[in-house]
Amino acid sequence: MMHVPLTVGAMMEHAETFFPKKQVISQTHDQLHHLTYKDVGQRTRRLMSVLKELGANKGDRIGTLAWNHHRHLEIYFAAPGIGSVLHTINIRLAPEHIIYIINHAEDKILFVDEDILPLIEKIKDHLTTVEAYVVMTDKAELPDSSIHPLYSYEELLQTGDPSYPFNTDIDENEIAGMCYTSATTGKPKGVTYSHRGIVLHSYALGLADSAAISESDVSMPVVPQFHVNAWGTPFACTWFGSTQVLPGPRFTPQRLAEFIDKFKVTITAGVPTIWLALYRELEKGIYDTSSLRAVLCGGSAAPLGLIKAFEEKLNIPFFHAYGATETTPLVTLSRLKSYQQNLSNEEKLKERSRQGILVPGLQMKVLGNSGEISWDDQEMGELLVRGNWIANEYYKDERSEQAFVDGWFHTGDVVTVDEEGTIKIVDRTKDLIKSGGEWISSVDLENAIMAHEAVFEASVVAVPDAEWQERPIACVVLNEGYKKDGMKEAIMNYLRPQFAKFWLPDNVLFFDEIPKTSVGKFLKRELREQVKEQLGLKN
Amino acid sequence: MMHVPLTVGAMMEHAETFFPKKQVISQTHDQLHHLTYKDVGQRTRRLMSVLKELGANKGDRIGTLAWNHHRHLEIYFAAPGIGSVLHTINIRLAPEHIIYIINHAEDKILFVDEDILPLIEKIKDHLTTVEAYVVMTDKAELPDSSIHPLYSYEELLQTGDPSYPFNTDIDENEIAGMCYTSATTGKPKGVTYSHRGIVLHSYALGLADSAAISESDVSMPVVPQFHVNAWGTPFACTWFGSTQVLPGPRFTPQRLAEFIDKFKVTITAGVPTIWLALYRELEKGIYDTSSLRAVLCGGSAAPLGLIKAFEEKLNIPFFHAYGATETTPLVTLSRLKSYQQNLSNEEKLKERSRQGILVPGLQMKVLGNSGEISWDDQEMGELLVRGNWIANEYYKDERSEQAFVDGWFHTGDVVTVDEEGTIKIVDRTKDLIKSGGEWISSVDLENAIMAHEAVFEASVVAVPDAEWQERPIACVVLNEGYKKDGMKEAIMNYLRPQFAKFWLPDNVLFFDEIPKTSVGKFLKRELREQVKEQLGLKN
Repeated sequence: MMHVPLTVGAMMEHAETFFPKKQVISQTHDQLHHLTYKDVGQRTRRLMSVLKELGANKGDRIGTLAWNHHRHLEIYFAAPGIGSVLHTINIRLAPEHIIYIINHAEDKILFVDEDILPLIEKIKDHLTTVEAYVVMTDKAELPDSSIHPLYSYEELLQTGDPSYPFNTDIDENEIAGMCYTSATTGKPKGVTYSHRGIVLHSYALGLADSAAISESDVSMPVVPQFHVNAWGTPFACTWFGSTQVLPGPRFTPQRLAEFIDKFKVTITAGVPTIWLALYRELEKGIYDTSSLRAVLCGGSAAPLGLIKAFEEKLNIPFFHAYGATETTPLVTLSRLKSYQQNLSNEEKLKERSRQGILVPGLQMKVLGNSGEISWDDQEMGELLVRGNWIANEYYKDERSEQAFVDGWFHTGDVVTVDEEGTIKIVDRTKDLIKSGGEWISSVDLENAIMAHEAVFEASVVAVPDAEWQERPIACVVLNEGYKKDGMKEAIMNYLRPQFAKFWLPDNVLFFDEIPKTSVGKFLKRELREQVKEQLGLKN
Repeated sequence: MMHVPLTVGAMMEHAETFFPKKQVISQTHDQLHHLTYKDVGQRTRRLMSVLKELGANKGDRIGTLAWNHHRHLEIYFAAPGIGSVLHTINIRLAPEHIIYIINHAEDKILFVDEDILPLIEKIKDHLTTVEAYVVMTDKAELPDSSIHPLYSYEELLQTGDPSYPFNTDIDENEIAGMCYTSATTGKPKGVTYSHRGIVLHSYALGLADSAAISESDVSMPVVPQFHVNAWGTPFACTWFGSTQVLPGPRFTPQRLAEFIDKFKVTITAGVPTIWLALYRELEKGIYDTSSLRAVLCGGSAAPLGLIKAFEEKLNIPFFHAYGATETTPLVTLSRLKSYQQNLSNEEKLKERSRQGILVPGLQMKVLGNSGEISWDDQEMGELLVRGNWIANEYYKDERSEQAFVDGWFHTGDVVTVDEEGTIKIVDRTKDLIKSGGEWISSVDLENAIMAHEAVFEASVVAVPDAEWQERPIACVVLNEGYKKDGMKEAIMNYLRPQFAKFWLPDNVLFFDEIPKTSVGKFLKRELREQVKEQLGLKN
């Protein structure tokens, strides 16, 4: 057999060749753009020649601080297309983390959206490796700025060569992209993506039993392009010739709903908080969403009620997926097997609320208290994964050796597995409560408590215990109108029939609010400190 | 990123792990078997340990002379699973070719179906490398035979280890399989398939826009497992957990129709002659074929009438595909693009009768008279392909250098390409008529002539011409009841409005029959000789 390297550039060439008329619809700050893959291909080639002019060489990192739009898509292919590295930067991170990331990756050129320039102005003196800045603006003139040298994307493109060739002298194991994941403690950790990994991941996204991305799709990634390459959808959608709708900067649920209606979006991907907000907008009943064949939900587990709301009230198929920055990200996707179609609606929903089975091409292993767990949906263990789109290290980072052991990535996610091989995320390893040699899922307890009518939200954390090692404490925010008096006993009574005795929280504490991360997840590290303080366990 | 070799064994492991309950339904000489992937996985492991016992080492060729059934499927995974090579042998070839193939491949072990033993008895003294024969019989006792050493498949399996591990020390570029293609002249030519090629080809078969092979499919390969691995479907279907229905030895159209009905077959693959025979059976109207979502047709171009008959009369979706032994085989598949859904039914059918666009992961180039042709559906050229599941040589064969040039496989097929990038096979390079610097498609002329009511079949061949280099001669077999008198002029008059003047045949000759190959293709080499004789051009 021939050995032809699997490269990102070849995916764009396929789109240019076989889908030149298909469209990329892109919302930027000022306007809505309609481009064809012929346009995008030529602009990508222009950009490649521009990057070479700006001094980008093989392996150089090209940073982006940008929203979801066509210029960002063009860099997705142009940077790896010349053998450089697409480095997408999470614009929502704290400035000191952004400085760290850019310097640690040693970005040579930074592509920045217009509304992010003020941030760059503030931090530019701390950036030690950047040689050129490019602002991705629609405007004819450069914005007034102290950043230097600052170029205009469109002006540069005019000087570019529309038939500049993709570099074919690329080993498929070379790095095509990178992304930093925000660690809960310490500096962000860099993950690099190989050409091989991105191409194989794109195949996985196109499989009929996975996301089934197709030429007939109209894909609108809501997950940011600065976050794990918008889950790889821009690569796969380009390769397979899907129409892409890129919703641009600071979109609202209303814009998303309008775009779904107007552009007949068939598939979209994002996190539960987005879908909750979108659901509230769609509930108004003024949008036609009949084109939607799949809402992919990942990042964290969607509540059963949200899945139900989309499927039953809006008639929109909703799919749970699981992955991480370290996994490109697709690891599992929840789809019923053919023989599960005979289950009752309730059983189907329960199955669909799990994270699903492994996509073809990966391997998994679940390590519990004493080796590999049994697939009985009871035993818990940490999920380990392995495969060609799974990272094998953090970029120049000593923390690698904790997460990457003997060829397996330790996800830090605790799961159960049922006999069908579908996983269910039950906790993070660091949030799991280890009580008397047994494991207690904080997430299961939280979900149970949040189902109580008096509870607005609840989080469960471990506190040290002399006898049992750790014990669970429930932290509860009550709904308006409910009083704390007697509520502790009410909640405990509510939980008793649902859990083994040793699972029951030792205490229920009441809070006005539960501390959260910037993306709305419980900030358990901080909550644990508050709990210890309330209980007088602070040292 | 991790680098995990893409291996055939890992596909079976995925099926065992995630689809243990799904079934393989297999017709053998004596009975219908129902096995699960758990069974097939364990039997494959047993077989691997048996192969090791029989002395199979890495790289050794394991030959098979067998129909489509579960034992053949098990060898598909067991041979590459230990790092040996699955060598499927076309049982329909002439005995001297089979001898050549087995000796040329240096097969160490031969797996043989019971009804093929008599053939082996005849040729066994000529086989120079085979050390062991295994008969794949359902019977408890070995058949009476002079072949030595002869083993019983099921007896061997009983001694095997059901948890024998797949060899993980395999480089993905190592050879997993091989198959000989019958050359029109000379000895058959061997093609080898790498693990990498088979895995990537399987991904391609699973893509939503390709064959979309899925867990929910019930796949019945009619194309033989001894022919280009039944187009790779057993690999892909196992990996993705499809139910497989293997129709066994010497099946009839009736058995195929019954299986489609009984087992709710969703997808099947084969050549036009099979579909013509199946159509006649299905026309009886006694079978429920509503489960069928795709009939894949390749090997040679299906007549428009056949596509129409399946789609319009039987309501069965019919898909043209194109490939060759050298291409694993999937190269193109014909599917309408989303915006082509607006075409008229006739235009759609015309588009669907083409061979389609390239599957993602391959590259193509079409070389005409003077470099790459334009995609205007007029200019003709030879199709060249390149990619990870395309052969780069014939196995130990000097003829390699004609077909594999500068990293491209020269298919020998002449195509036109339309502006959508879909190819249409118009001829074989060796059958193309080169007249005065222009190319004339023998196939186009044949199809036109065969549309005449008086014509039963027609073939067009080139004869040498002093002035024009070559000129076309039409060879016609008339339908019963039609006389030759005046028919030459009638046919020429019929062709005149359809073709440019220089395309028109110089002569129309009448035959009682047209010589054909064993698979029913026109044997143009022989026909050309007969024509030259009739015209007195014989030297």
